[in-house]
Amino acid sequence: MSQPFQPHLSEIKVRGYHLDLYGHVNNARYLEFLEEARWGFTETYGSLEAFTEAGLAFVIVNININYRRAALMGEQLVIETAMQKIGSRSAVIHQEVKLKGTDTIVAEADVTFVVFSQKAGGAVAMENEVRAMFEALPAWPAKV
Amino acid sequence: MSQPFQPHLSEIKVRGYHLDLYGHVNNARYLEFLEEARWGFTETYGSLEAFTEAGLAFVIVNININYRRAALMGEQLVIETAMQKIGSRSAVIHQEVKLKGTDTIVAEADVTFVVFSQKAGGAVAMENEVRAMFEALPAWPAKV
Amino acid sequence: MSQPFQPHLSEIKVRGYHLDLYGHVNNARYLEFLEEARWGFTETYGSLEAFTEAGLAFVIVNININYRRAALMGEQLVIETAMQKIGSRSAVIHQEVKLKGTDTIVAEADVTFVVFSQKAGGAVAMENEVRAMFEALPAWPAKV
Amino acid sequence: MSQPFQPHLSEIKVRGYHLDLYGHVNNARYLEFLEEARWGFTETYGSLEAFTEAGLAFVIVNININYRRAALMGEQLVIETAMQKIGSRSAVIHQEVKLKGTDTIVAEADVTFVVFSQKAGGAVAMENEVRAMFEALPAWPAKV
Repeated sequence: MSQPFQPHLSEIKVRGYHLDLYGHVNNARYLEFLEEARWGFTETYGSLEAFTEAGLAFVIVNININYRRAALMGEQLVIETAMQKIGSRSAVIHQEVKLKGTDTIVAEADVTFVVFSQKAGGAVAMENEVRAMFEALPAWPAKV
Repeated sequence: MSQPFQPHLSEIKVRGYHLDLYGHVNNARYLEFLEEARWGFTETYGSLEAFTEAGLAFVIVNININYRRAALMGEQLVIETAMQKIGSRSAVIHQEVKLKGTDTIVAEADVTFVVFSQKAGGAVAMENEVRAMFEALPAWPAKV
Repeated sequence: MSQPFQPHLSEIKVRGYHLDLYGHVNNARYLEFLEEARWGFTETYGSLEAFTEAGLAFVIVNININYRRAALMGEQLVIETAMQKIGSRSAVIHQEVKLKGTDTIVAEADVTFVVFSQKAGGAVAMENEVRAMFEALPAWPAKV
Repeated sequence: MSQPFQPHLSEIKVRGYHLDLYGHVNNARYLEFLEEARWGFTETYGSLEAFTEAGLAFVIVNININYRRAALMGEQLVIETAMQKIGSRSAVIHQEVKLKGTDTIVAEADVTFVVFSQKAGGAVAMENEVRAMFEALPAWPAKV
């Protein structure tokens, strides 16, 4: 029996400087929240140093984000991060921003990235060690 | 004969504080560039005041952005903004970030929004005056 | 005997989106770090709700920040926050950003604020309950 | 007779994403406005390329900013930038953020920087070509 799925969790509290004209967290700011969570995800499960030393870099090619509910001053948010899909040339991380202690989704995003190799001068195939690295990460359960 | 399509144009020059670890404009920052361009679009073609006085607000529900080419220090960017689609409950603005004076696309995004009515306490249908307002805006040519 | 002084502590880890052209945390970003720490300070020792309900607001009138050492990708920072001075019309919070676990100061700032009263339509004197509130907060030891 | 002093001018319009909890431009955001203006100042009067090729970089060591009046949604701001003082090891740029077309100061800052030399591994003296470069820039009139 496999252990139950657990995405990477990171937390952020909504502060005055996150808000905009409407008193809601600004659209752009969510992308910083998501980036923060992905750095935490990378640190927890992988080795950015080894990755960087190998001349590899993550390059994001698409972000598709749904804004479901405005987040307000003082609210505590939890960001759940895990792999969604590993393709032949790219992979997708899915991230959900929830109100802490609830199932209320504030925002959710699919973040598609490629692995860029300085040596190759382009994106590498998701094969061998690279693929193995991403397959070892926590992944969202397949949707039925 | 109709006059040739012209999207709204706004310009931004890449500065040191727009960049991140890799010396590229950060993913989140593009959403500020796009928001800047949409405010310009709104000012040029519409009346935010009238809109606000009517108790209406734009609420973005989805942003789908493709990052095509890194933008670097000192590059001059042009953001093209126009309507893409007007649905029954939501509408889509399409925006393209290009290197000025070229056809090179740095990023492009579909921004889906609804019109929220304080009075109705929810999104309004894209009908009557609201629909007419968006139909009067510059729109990208339909893809064949 | 009084207990040893302990400023409010908050932590932040330097991420890719905090950096700028030079790979250093950008000057403007430090002001967000400081604001984050002040919200934590306020939450820990005071009641923002009571303050807001009384129609009062903090208004910052001056920030004087020294940048001492560049902060780099992945570094863990600790922000120390405490009161520096309570004047007749304004007060000063002093904040120090240090490399965690060291005495190395990355940046330090004096943040001068007034308490604005909506009812009075201006800054209130630092007297009575308002003064008492600030005097109850942790304060940096007087410099000899 | 000398020609009348004219600082470098740059403009910015206050947008929704510049604001914070109180509907005012956030304190940190002003530092981005000031940085934007300094890049413009540098471009207009100097050569960043030559500077960078010589292995030199501006390093800001202090920002002292007064917030005088809140800036609100839609307001058009003008940022005036010129040299204030050239010392032996550092120099000061003074910047004033005004409501366009008025003398109303929204914020004003002294920005102290040194010139860092990669070759020397430290700040260089403000002498010879370096001093001449800064002396050639527009400067605020001396206060009487």
